[in-house]
Amino acid sequence: MPRARKKQPVPSATVPRLSQYLRQLQELQARGTSTISSRQLAEAVGTNPAQIRKDLSYFGEFGIRGVGYEVEHLINELKKCLGLDRAWDTIIIGAGKLGTALARYRGFGKQGFHLMAMFDTSKAVIGKNRGAGPVLSTSDLEKYIRRHHVDIAIVTTPAAVAQTIIDRAVAAGVPSVLNFAPIRAQAKKPAIVRQVDLSTELMTLSYYLKNR
Amino acid sequence: MPRARKKQPVPSATVPRLSQYLRQLQELQARGTSTISSRQLAEAVGTNPAQIRKDLSYFGEFGIRGVGYEVEHLINELKKCLGLDRAWDTIIIGAGKLGTALARYRGFGKQGFHLMAMFDTSKAVIGKNRGAGPVLSTSDLEKYIRRHHVDIAIVTTPAAVAQTIIDRAVAAGVPSVLNFAPIRAQAKKPAIVRQVDLSTELMTLSYYLKNR
Repeated sequence: MPRARKKQPVPSATVPRLSQYLRQLQELQARGTSTISSRQLAEAVGTNPAQIRKDLSYFGEFGIRGVGYEVEHLINELKKCLGLDRAWDTIIIGAGKLGTALARYRGFGKQGFHLMAMFDTSKAVIGKNRGAGPVLSTSDLEKYIRRHHVDIAIVTTPAAVAQTIIDRAVAAGVPSVLNFAPIRAQAKKPAIVRQVDLSTELMTLSYYLKNR
Repeated sequence: MPRARKKQPVPSATVPRLSQYLRQLQELQARGTSTISSRQLAEAVGTNPAQIRKDLSYFGEFGIRGVGYEVEHLINELKKCLGLDRAWDTIIIGAGKLGTALARYRGFGKQGFHLMAMFDTSKAVIGKNRGAGPVLSTSDLEKYIRRHHVDIAIVTTPAAVAQTIIDRAVAAGVPSVLNFAPIRAQAKKPAIVRQVDLSTELMTLSYYLKNR
């Protein structure tokens, strides 16, 4: 019996690139493209064909020699790789401007993220519709998480309360957090925290602007 | 005469870390800390002392053996490294929810970004205050850029118009762009474009959630 090939670890830089390939392929599909070479895909995303072949090689053999990739097939395979072949139940904690902008972000539902509820502490906001039905009170967070299934908590609270909110969500059973608050948030394993850090982006831009 | 030491190229991963060190040091300073060892700073930002020493070594010698770093001095040096010892004149194009959230983002002015104006195409928004005085019409973008000095354009328009807006801003003289629209934006060198990509962040989170 042949032994299953041992999986190579996927480099962390590969994963965001897969999402770029996926988005580009979806655009190409919307414009009617059904097959594409790795060279064409590389041009469209601004990389080189070898990079694309390497990135895809961690997940299997998707190309056909002399033809390239079937766009629809590769889209489906990339969605599987990225876990986008299912819907992730998502909540947003913090229904301010940023939370509301995210709730109304078009790409959200399109890629399989199912926004279930939003939470806030402000009486002026609770009960209002900010993009996902009436905003719930943050004091009901644990109760909600225990009763419903939540895969992802997006945190857009002020910095001062973000870590406490993340601790509460994770303790109640949320396995992953996307944090927008400008703190270096942490969570006990196996929970996953990813950080979107606007101030780091601005400072990094400043660095390159200065050293232009 | 001693020759000036040749500057080593700074790895791209170092720059965002400098901004994290800076933010952490500012917090420490606010709490009254005046000196810190690289071990303590490493613990505070969740890295190791060797990494911090390596990152700082590209810019000079900041530590004192046996003492560590003087917090105020290191803050000032990091600000210089990152180009934050001056104010960058910044505009936001797209005064929707995300643009407004960014305009009202507290960290903005604190780190030396001077928000001068916001632009939008919607008659319902033009003239309203979304955080930086009356929103201007995007049709006046070039006129404004030529009359004022603009270092950074933050783009929060819909995806469909983002590249056109970036082209217009750069052609009118804006040297750097922070793009939030979900496209792979480009600009002719020497203009700099950095991308904040929410959909890539969500997909990357999805990948790690699936492979937990």
